[in-house]
Amino acid sequence: MKDLRAGPTGFHDVRETNLGVVLRAVRTLAPCSRAAVAAATGLNKTTVSSLVADLIARGLLRETGESAERRVGRPGVMLALDELTIAAIGVEVNVDYLSVVAVDLLERSLITRHIAFDARSAGPDACAHRIVEAVRSVADAPALRHRTLIGLSVAVPGLVDSPRGVVTRAPNLAWRGTPLRSRLEELMEPAGPPPMPVLVDNDANLGAVAEYRGGHLARTGDLVYITGEVGIGAGVLMNGELLRGSAGFAGEIGHVRMVEDGPPCGCGRRGCLEALAGIEAILRAALPDRFPAGALSRADLADLVDSAVQRATAQDPVAVDALHTAGSWLGRGAATLVNLVNPGAVVLGGYFVPLAPWLLPACRPAVRELSFAPDAGGCVVETSELGLSAAAQGGAVAMVDAMESGRLPLPPPQAGSADEGAS
Amino acid sequence: MKDLRAGPTGFHDVRETNLGVVLRAVRTLAPCSRAAVAAATGLNKTTVSSLVADLIARGLLRETGESAERRVGRPGVMLALDELTIAAIGVEVNVDYLSVVAVDLLERSLITRHIAFDARSAGPDACAHRIVEAVRSVADAPALRHRTLIGLSVAVPGLVDSPRGVVTRAPNLAWRGTPLRSRLEELMEPAGPPPMPVLVDNDANLGAVAEYRGGHLARTGDLVYITGEVGIGAGVLMNGELLRGSAGFAGEIGHVRMVEDGPPCGCGRRGCLEALAGIEAILRAALPDRFPAGALSRADLADLVDSAVQRATAQDPVAVDALHTAGSWLGRGAATLVNLVNPGAVVLGGYFVPLAPWLLPACRPAVRELSFAPDAGGCVVETSELGLSAAAQGGAVAMVDAMESGRLPLPPPQAGSADEGAS
Repeated sequence: MKDLRAGPTGFHDVRETNLGVVLRAVRTLAPCSRAAVAAATGLNKTTVSSLVADLIARGLLRETGESAERRVGRPGVMLALDELTIAAIGVEVNVDYLSVVAVDLLERSLITRHIAFDARSAGPDACAHRIVEAVRSVADAPALRHRTLIGLSVAVPGLVDSPRGVVTRAPNLAWRGTPLRSRLEELMEPAGPPPMPVLVDNDANLGAVAEYRGGHLARTGDLVYITGEVGIGAGVLMNGELLRGSAGFAGEIGHVRMVEDGPPCGCGRRGCLEALAGIEAILRAALPDRFPAGALSRADLADLVDSAVQRATAQDPVAVDALHTAGSWLGRGAATLVNLVNPGAVVLGGYFVPLAPWLLPACRPAVRELSFAPDAGGCVVETSELGLSAAAQGGAVAMVDAMESGRLPLPPPQAGSADEGAS
Repeated sequence: MKDLRAGPTGFHDVRETNLGVVLRAVRTLAPCSRAAVAAATGLNKTTVSSLVADLIARGLLRETGESAERRVGRPGVMLALDELTIAAIGVEVNVDYLSVVAVDLLERSLITRHIAFDARSAGPDACAHRIVEAVRSVADAPALRHRTLIGLSVAVPGLVDSPRGVVTRAPNLAWRGTPLRSRLEELMEPAGPPPMPVLVDNDANLGAVAEYRGGHLARTGDLVYITGEVGIGAGVLMNGELLRGSAGFAGEIGHVRMVEDGPPCGCGRRGCLEALAGIEAILRAALPDRFPAGALSRADLADLVDSAVQRATAQDPVAVDALHTAGSWLGRGAATLVNLVNPGAVVLGGYFVPLAPWLLPACRPAVRELSFAPDAGGCVVETSELGLSAAAQGGAVAMVDAMESGRLPLPPPQAGSADEGAS
């Protein structure tokens, strides 16, 4: 049911698209010859040579010396991704921290920073300043200082209108209609780092990208990543592509009503999954003595999660029971995903990871019990190995990934460009 | 995040794919010249001429005479789809009926038949016999007698392993592991109709295809069709493509648990949406006097739905209240879809259509209230205009649609093929 092919695109678009195709081919095949790239992509050898030259000029490919293969005629020079030239930065804003990750062209982490930060109290403008400060600090670090920054992505826990770069609604940050991308672009303009594309997206979506590209279930095409913070969101990949829906608001598993007249949720409703199994709900139930007046400082979340782990390890019945109950609700939420989108894997992330030894024994049976398809439609429930930086890493990876769709950094100025009139 | 392009495909595959591309172009542009097809597809004119000749030989395209345009040189002969040569047949099996629809290449209905049939009591083998009998009867009807049948699709309410043609589980039919496609192929082999491809798929999936191709919300790319039978299922289209999930079992909204300890469901669990808002549940609540001993003859469903409509029209409080309650549950189910996949439209089908005047006033507010995204993420809730034949029609349309992906009927034998050795 695909629509009619688009009409002929402009020459520039075709070339950018083909640059992305060659980049992707070298990522898959490296080390490889130009001839191997031509064979894999269906592009002719002359075109491939021209595209490769362009990618080398942009610092994205490098020659690795000659092939070890014995062959007749001129030995093939081998190509690989140039992992030394560029970097992409991803930032995650959450209620109690900022995560910052920089990756190279191989999508390997160059820097990972975790910054305790109460984004809700700070408000969106102070948060934008803090993000830019963190990006500048990372850009100046020795591992990045000589690299071209190809893009910045910012992950936010809430509804994001990604094409416009606006946070539509993030109840746990108390943000609504926040034009985050344009504010970041304004703040970055006057001084370095130099202008670069800025992407704003939902944290669960970018967590799912990180899992798909580099998690231990990497390349599971139908994969759901569930954030485990104060909020719960799902990033849903189908055939390796993010399921966004008509307005970009898909994946809001945290606000599916699980029970009538349940506990109040940050969204203003009752009985949402997030109100039953989000980290704040879990901590309130597991550590009732730590919330004397119902107050919770967001900056304490990591410490409180540690306390819950310690108590559960010591078999404190209140903590164990709270985690078991939350695990059952998570299982029912995951079963809803299984029934509706039938993923091959559900990956629990964030603070769910340290709590998984007590969550999973209740979660997994609930998924099997409440899924209509036999054996939960083949879905496994696992925990992430990417820690609290999953969404930041996924964002950085998404910027690298965008190059393979033909959105490449500009080539450096041509050495001969001043001689134009001479010939 | 698409994978590397596949290596070069065989010449035959490329040609079949291009035949499909040309067919799709003519569907979109007709009446149109060969030159217009070349411009729209990017294929060169010689290739288009050869492909058009092939499609004309297969009875899929026809020339419609000369263009009315004034132009220099030879006037362009215009092309259109040949709506007289082929037909595709779709059958829906449900608990109380078979629907049979035949469509032409323009996807217009040639025949629609509704056959009262208790598929559950009959069992799968008798049902397969009844399907083949119905297909033969339709194939012999005057509207189809001189057409080439390009395929048969069968829609089933349950989990379908469509690549294998097996019904994995259909609780309301009491089928499990039923190899329906192979049985139908066996039964069709000995006598006419001649062998044709057989597709078995989920009824909600094919209903969604019918809505997308020919319903009143046609071309809404992110669309969900919800079946309203004894069972409730969802066919989810994202960007116009069916969301199937890793095992093909997506869309089982009817078995999402809505409430703990709710009424028993045909699947063996409790509190599923189907047990609260499926047609049998609605009729039991709306017409309690018609179920003295809890017994329900499946063949009576249509009559009972009529009774419910009559009582609700007469403002019978029991009937009105039952429909209102069911509408609220349907709204909560639709809100779950909105939160997870953010469709642009949810279309209620089947027996929900005649009951919609009482269901929708409760359903729509529940969708808005329980959706996290503002204004339900832009989702509208409407009723189908395709009636009880939606899934059958969608199946027939899917067979026509498959041709545009290059799965074409074989060309007729060449007149000159016996002369091969002569030149």
